[in-house]
Amino acid sequence: MEKNWQEVRKEVKKFVEEEVYPAEPALQKRDEESKKIMSDLMQKAKDQSLWALGHPKDIGGEGMPFMEYVYINEVVGRSSSAMVALGTHSLQDSIMLREYASEKWRDKYLEPLVQGEIFPSFGMTEPDVSSSDPTQLETTAVLEGDEWVINGKKWFTSGAAGAAYTTVMCKTEVDVPSHGAFSMIIVPTDNPGYKILRETPVLGMQGGHGGHYEVAYENVRVPKENLLGPRGQGFIIAQKRLGPGRIFHCMRWLGQAQRAFDLMCLRLHEREAFGSPLADKQLMQKFVFDSACEIQASRQLTLDAAKRIDQGDDARIEIGMIKVVGASMLHNVIDRAIQVHGAKGLTDDTPLSQMYRHAREARIYDGPDEVHVQSVARRILKNYQNNGAGWDFGERDASLMN
Amino acid sequence: MEKNWQEVRKEVKKFVEEEVYPAEPALQKRDEESKKIMSDLMQKAKDQSLWALGHPKDIGGEGMPFMEYVYINEVVGRSSSAMVALGTHSLQDSIMLREYASEKWRDKYLEPLVQGEIFPSFGMTEPDVSSSDPTQLETTAVLEGDEWVINGKKWFTSGAAGAAYTTVMCKTEVDVPSHGAFSMIIVPTDNPGYKILRETPVLGMQGGHGGHYEVAYENVRVPKENLLGPRGQGFIIAQKRLGPGRIFHCMRWLGQAQRAFDLMCLRLHEREAFGSPLADKQLMQKFVFDSACEIQASRQLTLDAAKRIDQGDDARIEIGMIKVVGASMLHNVIDRAIQVHGAKGLTDDTPLSQMYRHAREARIYDGPDEVHVQSVARRILKNYQNNGAGWDFGERDASLMN
Amino acid sequence: MEKNWQEVRKEVKKFVEEEVYPAEPALQKRDEESKKIMSDLMQKAKDQSLWALGHPKDIGGEGMPFMEYVYINEVVGRSSSAMVALGTHSLQDSIMLREYASEKWRDKYLEPLVQGEIFPSFGMTEPDVSSSDPTQLETTAVLEGDEWVINGKKWFTSGAAGAAYTTVMCKTEVDVPSHGAFSMIIVPTDNPGYKILRETPVLGMQGGHGGHYEVAYENVRVPKENLLGPRGQGFIIAQKRLGPGRIFHCMRWLGQAQRAFDLMCLRLHEREAFGSPLADKQLMQKFVFDSACEIQASRQLTLDAAKRIDQGDDARIEIGMIKVVGASMLHNVIDRAIQVHGAKGLTDDTPLSQMYRHAREARIYDGPDEVHVQSVARRILKNYQNNGAGWDFGERDASLMN
Amino acid sequence: MEKNWQEVRKEVKKFVEEEVYPAEPALQKRDEESKKIMSDLMQKAKDQSLWALGHPKDIGGEGMPFMEYVYINEVVGRSSSAMVALGTHSLQDSIMLREYASEKWRDKYLEPLVQGEIFPSFGMTEPDVSSSDPTQLETTAVLEGDEWVINGKKWFTSGAAGAAYTTVMCKTEVDVPSHGAFSMIIVPTDNPGYKILRETPVLGMQGGHGGHYEVAYENVRVPKENLLGPRGQGFIIAQKRLGPGRIFHCMRWLGQAQRAFDLMCLRLHEREAFGSPLADKQLMQKFVFDSACEIQASRQLTLDAAKRIDQGDDARIEIGMIKVVGASMLHNVIDRAIQVHGAKGLTDDTPLSQMYRHAREARIYDGPDEVHVQSVARRILKNYQNNGAGWDFGERDASLMN
Repeated sequence: MEKNWQEVRKEVKKFVEEEVYPAEPALQKRDEESKKIMSDLMQKAKDQSLWALGHPKDIGGEGMPFMEYVYINEVVGRSSSAMVALGTHSLQDSIMLREYASEKWRDKYLEPLVQGEIFPSFGMTEPDVSSSDPTQLETTAVLEGDEWVINGKKWFTSGAAGAAYTTVMCKTEVDVPSHGAFSMIIVPTDNPGYKILRETPVLGMQGGHGGHYEVAYENVRVPKENLLGPRGQGFIIAQKRLGPGRIFHCMRWLGQAQRAFDLMCLRLHEREAFGSPLADKQLMQKFVFDSACEIQASRQLTLDAAKRIDQGDDARIEIGMIKVVGASMLHNVIDRAIQVHGAKGLTDDTPLSQMYRHAREARIYDGPDEVHVQSVARRILKNYQNNGAGWDFGERDASLMN
Repeated sequence: MEKNWQEVRKEVKKFVEEEVYPAEPALQKRDEESKKIMSDLMQKAKDQSLWALGHPKDIGGEGMPFMEYVYINEVVGRSSSAMVALGTHSLQDSIMLREYASEKWRDKYLEPLVQGEIFPSFGMTEPDVSSSDPTQLETTAVLEGDEWVINGKKWFTSGAAGAAYTTVMCKTEVDVPSHGAFSMIIVPTDNPGYKILRETPVLGMQGGHGGHYEVAYENVRVPKENLLGPRGQGFIIAQKRLGPGRIFHCMRWLGQAQRAFDLMCLRLHEREAFGSPLADKQLMQKFVFDSACEIQASRQLTLDAAKRIDQGDDARIEIGMIKVVGASMLHNVIDRAIQVHGAKGLTDDTPLSQMYRHAREARIYDGPDEVHVQSVARRILKNYQNNGAGWDFGERDASLMN
Repeated sequence: MEKNWQEVRKEVKKFVEEEVYPAEPALQKRDEESKKIMSDLMQKAKDQSLWALGHPKDIGGEGMPFMEYVYINEVVGRSSSAMVALGTHSLQDSIMLREYASEKWRDKYLEPLVQGEIFPSFGMTEPDVSSSDPTQLETTAVLEGDEWVINGKKWFTSGAAGAAYTTVMCKTEVDVPSHGAFSMIIVPTDNPGYKILRETPVLGMQGGHGGHYEVAYENVRVPKENLLGPRGQGFIIAQKRLGPGRIFHCMRWLGQAQRAFDLMCLRLHEREAFGSPLADKQLMQKFVFDSACEIQASRQLTLDAAKRIDQGDDARIEIGMIKVVGASMLHNVIDRAIQVHGAKGLTDDTPLSQMYRHAREARIYDGPDEVHVQSVARRILKNYQNNGAGWDFGERDASLMN
Repeated sequence: MEKNWQEVRKEVKKFVEEEVYPAEPALQKRDEESKKIMSDLMQKAKDQSLWALGHPKDIGGEGMPFMEYVYINEVVGRSSSAMVALGTHSLQDSIMLREYASEKWRDKYLEPLVQGEIFPSFGMTEPDVSSSDPTQLETTAVLEGDEWVINGKKWFTSGAAGAAYTTVMCKTEVDVPSHGAFSMIIVPTDNPGYKILRETPVLGMQGGHGGHYEVAYENVRVPKENLLGPRGQGFIIAQKRLGPGRIFHCMRWLGQAQRAFDLMCLRLHEREAFGSPLADKQLMQKFVFDSACEIQASRQLTLDAAKRIDQGDDARIEIGMIKVVGASMLHNVIDRAIQVHGAKGLTDDTPLSQMYRHAREARIYDGPDEVHVQSVARRILKNYQNNGAGWDFGERDASLMN
């Protein structure tokens, strides 16, 4: 790319604000018109070379380096529709296909996936199992001859309705430790055993590309080669998918927060009460201050984690931290923006109503906060056992910069 | 009443759990069937003498004493549908009619209102005015001959669609201090100038009796006698309506919180993670502990405020406090219950999704938290000026019990 | 008593404010003069019939009923010196002696103890054992002939230096479940094996009657009859001592908080910044509001727990809750008062510096917060097991008032 | 310097841990022995080329670049004694002298100051003026002939007792806006009008180099040339002193927090309760998690502010933020470490007791939190007025890296 990332960032911001924002209300509707609008947006993004910025060049993306793409995600995140409009949504699935799928599926799905012509979905969570402990998942895949036979039930399969295929996490191994007992398998959605049971709204929201579905797998038979990567490596692949994915996620949350912050600050100047603008009230100034601190702290933590990943560190501790800190920041900033808008903030007259509800998901998916709290603390505490060196925050930085 | 309130409480609880809970999903739909179901529930409540328990006997209620009725509201509050099913919803409007309406309107509306045959609505908030400062309201009523001519726009008029009439707060006086410039006027909804502009969903929720509407008043002409009470006393009447009303409100929030608390505790026993029930995890125990403390604190504060009101104190400070503390308690308890349910807590499979969203309103309506913070603090601080006696929490109690 | 408790409360308040407050700085010094001042205060309290208000009449107290005495403690708590000046400090030890001590010790200690002529101390916590789990305590008492031989080390023995005797918790039983393995034994401080090792300041504070000491028990031999109550009942007796004791404690915390609150509100009127009094700043008003809510919530919770105890309930859940909520309230209110005073709040020019440091103890002694969180939650959760009735806050109240 | 900063950091850490930590208890005492110990430590630091690392080379320091020295401060901060032992304490005063003092004073004070042979002090805060609003300061300096005549009272003058001179902020101008009405003037402590009134302990702490004093200036006469910089620029110079100073301050807070964090984690492995190490309890793990998040967030915010300053930005918003966030982080981490230590954490057996009390100062000095909240919010909100570009956190970063 000739342009530096700061320029790309500006273009993406302009695109999101000028093209995507105005289309948002219509895109909510999930009708034919909304599909047309989205498809036009996608084309515009391609025309402006803003499409699939982070996908590797060899699969049709712009190949932006990781750290630069991290910054871009912050701007993309301002609108949940922008992710699809700019082709960002398929990044993790594309990379999984590219790295782990058999040739057949790579040939079939990879290009249309990257181009936004088909949509992926991902089946992990199950209704009868605590989401905090994935080793309890009950969906099984048994190899019978050359076919995997899959049985089970998943829910919160995003976009299951319109998806071309689902990647589903199944228990494939027995008599091995649970972390090595699961594999990911590709299931085309036209498989007769693949049955969408119902849509499950999230805090009342359906619609858009964010729809969540409950899906039954009833004797789903797929060829052996639908396995992604080696048997038993489902969690390892998922983890690789999650690491950078969470960075992007947290950056998009920051984009959401920035949008809420802007709405809040503008509103504070617009409204008066008791003879002066809200912007002059200390309790409102505290909203601004606290939001700024939380956003900035969350940004710096996320960027720090990103830099570590960029240097080859797995940054498990840092990623666990930003998941929890980011989700809480996201809620708090949007919540204050709503409070500043009063009753209006709860209606559909601003994007805050949807943002608020999406934000509540953040503390649950990809593992509830409580799981991250425990696992981060354990990792840190291990360094203090048996005369270990402890966890010196500064030293860790120093070695990073060595 | 022959029964003591503890017995009535048990009957109401049984009614809510056994009759109302199962009907809730159907009642969401706002179709003909849901009207029939509600109407049947109302009849059952009347048959069991659980109808309009707090309304004065002379207007067809059961005339339960204030403090006893306070406790009943906690149980009613568990389901937002129970309020209508038990005739609780019309209490404040009935009392306003009884005390301030001209004979004509009392004759016409009071009985059917108490009996649940017609529904009231209340027009206060305006879209273009900060809800924290009601003296800025812009809807006007001008007396032309024997008629009030009303112009303006209101929103968040609850149940405007099905209501028989609206009580609307209008600026009627000029050249007087703003707190004495407003009056309340009755507007039948079949008035040609009364125009429902649209429904405004609250965090995506329409439906039920909780629908909120934006309403235009375009040269609405109503007879002079539609005035409630004397001219310029709109805020005084509203305040009287609010005082005990807020107590009932806070008690109903406690009912909501109790329901969420029950759902949370049951779920903690049902689910396992990492080899033991969630109930055994300290982080979950902290959820239980914190919720119990917040519920119990909020209850005791509310009951204390109720007792003061019952003794003739206006309890402005205490009511301001419970509004803020109660709303925050409500959010926190439901929020934890959702977290314990994981993704399921966000779907419609439990009542938590709706409860969570209703809870967000609590920090906004009847004046945003920030207004109460300021006005309570000012009232307290006044007692410390000019060698005042200060605000001795214990002394205040001691004098109450004298 | 002829006077009602509201009158007594006023007299105690006057005594504390007019007699004790002015003496506080001198009482810090722990010299001969301070002893004289305290002794004069004690005499004045006796002269005004304000001495030992809550002690039973048969041991020389005023025999105030439990609930009335609860309210008195709130006023006593405003000054830590008032507790001694009014003879309140020996209540729990006096009752233990009265109920569990052999005749010899009752005869010897009870009267001078109640009269404030000798001081008690209490040896529980040990330096090498986590205070959250008392079953790990290591001090042992072995019966050799007619004597207990005690060995071990205690710390945080309050007032050990000037005390006439210590009641020490010892492991006396083997091969029994740990909760039944401990007994309390009286040790006169002139016993040759009783050795004060050092004073341990608490956040830099020594002085006054609050000094804490580390004490070694080296082959301390005391007669068999020094046992308090039956063998193995140490924890049961301690628990009985703690129940009402914690109520009094929490009430005294409320007295401390009231004092800090008063200082804060007065200061807010005194100081100006940027052209207006601090009392007019919203951030300061929020300090007042939050403090008022926390104080009032904590008061109501404590009074509710007291009423349950007064009615014979052990109120374990409620007492666990007020311990944690009260300690946090105490810190927060004092902390805000300091913030309002700026640098001055950290000096010795106001009582806040000492109050702040004492408040930090509150989250540790009598079991750290975390232990109460866990045990309260477990008790509540038990009610939800096996189709239990759950924990209905309102129902619990209703039955209380039946 | 030949060594890179990572190496220097390691050496400083080793010095602090191996030389300073063991000396801390003795250094508390402020006797002759403690002076000798400190003087030996200073010599050792000089011998190891760890002395005055951040002072410019031309005044006898090691001239470490700003960003590198930022990292060093984190390690120095672990012990408050290390600051003096390593010559860090005089940096801001040395730079003020170097840049603004007349030749006479530079010649007299600069070298011994940098070498730790004399100590500076700084007189700003006044007992009768709200510290949040320095324009109210009342100490005046009037030019009479060739002398400034200074009258007023200051307190919280650090180290006033042993200092060679004080830099005192005085009102020197009339009829100008208050921000331009103050000047800084050097006052040697042997001036007859310079009177130390008393020491004011901070939460009970005197001792060490951190003693705070109340000082009267009674007709203090000093030569005209004692003025620092031009007349009326007192606040401007103070601000320049504060900017980088606050960065160093926040880094030292992080060093304190790291030390508390280490103590906490080690203790969690050492202690058991209810059959397992504290490190295995979720509530303790949450302490670790929350502390790690707060430390890391505070670090990243501080480093980000430092980088902006290093690039010439004044970073007022970022510095206001880290002051508040850092002070709160510092308290919270130490507070949790104390809680984990139980009663021991309150004694002098660990450094936590002193750290806890010093941490409370952090929310007050250099302007109380509330002033920063307001001023940061106002600065941000200005960007949203009159179609301003707003405050885009990401864009600000992007431009920084351009």
